[in-house]
Amino acid sequence: MPSFVQIIEFTGTFAFAISGIRLASAKQFDWFGAYVIGLTTAIGGGTIRDLLLGVTPFWMTDPSYVICSGLALIWVILFSKTLIHLNNTFFIFDAIGLALFTMIGITKTLALDFPFWVAIVMGCITGAAGGVMRDVLINELPLVFRKEIYAMACVIGGWVYFVCHWLNFDPIITQLAGGASVFLVRIVAVKYQIGLPILKGEV
Amino acid sequence: MPSFVQIIEFTGTFAFAISGIRLASAKQFDWFGAYVIGLTTAIGGGTIRDLLLGVTPFWMTDPSYVICSGLALIWVILFSKTLIHLNNTFFIFDAIGLALFTMIGITKTLALDFPFWVAIVMGCITGAAGGVMRDVLINELPLVFRKEIYAMACVIGGWVYFVCHWLNFDPIITQLAGGASVFLVRIVAVKYQIGLPILKGEV
Amino acid sequence: MPSFVQIIEFTGTFAFAISGIRLASAKQFDWFGAYVIGLTTAIGGGTIRDLLLGVTPFWMTDPSYVICSGLALIWVILFSKTLIHLNNTFFIFDAIGLALFTMIGITKTLALDFPFWVAIVMGCITGAAGGVMRDVLINELPLVFRKEIYAMACVIGGWVYFVCHWLNFDPIITQLAGGASVFLVRIVAVKYQIGLPILKGEV
Repeated sequence: MPSFVQIIEFTGTFAFAISGIRLASAKQFDWFGAYVIGLTTAIGGGTIRDLLLGVTPFWMTDPSYVICSGLALIWVILFSKTLIHLNNTFFIFDAIGLALFTMIGITKTLALDFPFWVAIVMGCITGAAGGVMRDVLINELPLVFRKEIYAMACVIGGWVYFVCHWLNFDPIITQLAGGASVFLVRIVAVKYQIGLPILKGEV
Repeated sequence: MPSFVQIIEFTGTFAFAISGIRLASAKQFDWFGAYVIGLTTAIGGGTIRDLLLGVTPFWMTDPSYVICSGLALIWVILFSKTLIHLNNTFFIFDAIGLALFTMIGITKTLALDFPFWVAIVMGCITGAAGGVMRDVLINELPLVFRKEIYAMACVIGGWVYFVCHWLNFDPIITQLAGGASVFLVRIVAVKYQIGLPILKGEV
Repeated sequence: MPSFVQIIEFTGTFAFAISGIRLASAKQFDWFGAYVIGLTTAIGGGTIRDLLLGVTPFWMTDPSYVICSGLALIWVILFSKTLIHLNNTFFIFDAIGLALFTMIGITKTLALDFPFWVAIVMGCITGAAGGVMRDVLINELPLVFRKEIYAMACVIGGWVYFVCHWLNFDPIITQLAGGASVFLVRIVAVKYQIGLPILKGEV
């Protein structure tokens, strides 16, 4: 039986892969190319985190991420015409995935005895770097740097985690509070179209 | 005296580097930029593989790859006008390189005790990721995700390797069969312009 | 009290981050996006070097680089209109940073017992790869591959280091001579608009 966290993780991986596969389809990628973009979106952030931390990338010890991205591809192939009606559902799953991946990144970094500011950076990378890699591979400006608050939600969730940890809260409570913050900031940001200020400048 | 495998490896590295240098030349890169693109095309896939596997990148212990890419640059500078007549030759060399690099990636991964599905992913990365890095650096959509079967040939070769291995074939036979599959799939795919289905979708 | 090298390193990091943040501002990035581009420009080269060398990335053990890039962001936000008058100053700081980062890359690689040609490659990566990552993220052709001599200055400085080292010069003198070469080559190249030949070719 998969645990509750495993079910959430699978759902988040699926939502991240779907977002990559759909953007790849807009660029006329073939099935294999779309699969690679979906997989990169789903596991890219955690892979960069693990390389920086000096540990074996998480997906190399468990085939479920590679399989989950394959299921996402089949799903998009079968239901491409109806996916647009599920946009709100995917958005919720994506936000849940963002929250969970950020918490996984922070917890793993702290378990390796890095300081807190490194953990926040790694939470951010785990949550957001896959989407950046996706946008680089499909030759677009990274969306997370221009649109509604995304990576900043990971930073805020990281600080909430830090405060709860400092107040000696139970680890489960600390992670739930941090993850809920990421999720809520993201939902509120998109609902009210809140973005950070755009930087203006002449080069 | 270089061994037979070393000669094939040098030829493949040369063909990969040539492909990068020629695409760079279409973008008005200078000699140094073209060299970097050629080198990245040739060693990029193996470098990503080695970082993921947690070992020192292969080219850092043997200067021949860096030198080989330099020779490829000199070749393009000297014979740029006649290269177009050699397109078929380069295509054959490129397919040989793809086959050999895939087998090297699989063998190295298995030798480090990773499971088979990781080895197939690594064979694919070794063969195809350098071309993806090349296309990202010259700011184009990665070719391998849209054109004739390329990375998929590495996956098929990986499965042939797996079946031969499972049937207890001699390691040399197993590698030859796997490499020959990669080579043949690639040649047939280009000759008959066989590609995977294009993914259609609305975002 | 920070040492002389630390002051130079901070100045170089600041100049690299400023260059990234200003290019991001031309692409309508938000503050967070601009910060990430600035940070990547400043620490990207050294991070790739450390991953290839198999050591923990330098910025993960010292928060000053992350803070320095944040100060660069605040600077650009506050003084965006007057920055254009400081172009010459930033250019000098950037060249100083390039020289110092190259020498740090070479020294660190040699300290890990890699051969000299690897150290020159790593000096080059430390100095120039951050700018390449910046250009990939803002979806532009990498500037260093097409404009005035940049990465080539790192290679020349590496050779000067090598010759001084081979002549048994004092380590401090060796590093100063190498760094001064990088700086001078870069300044002269921009002042007289010296570039490497452009590679012409038909694909």
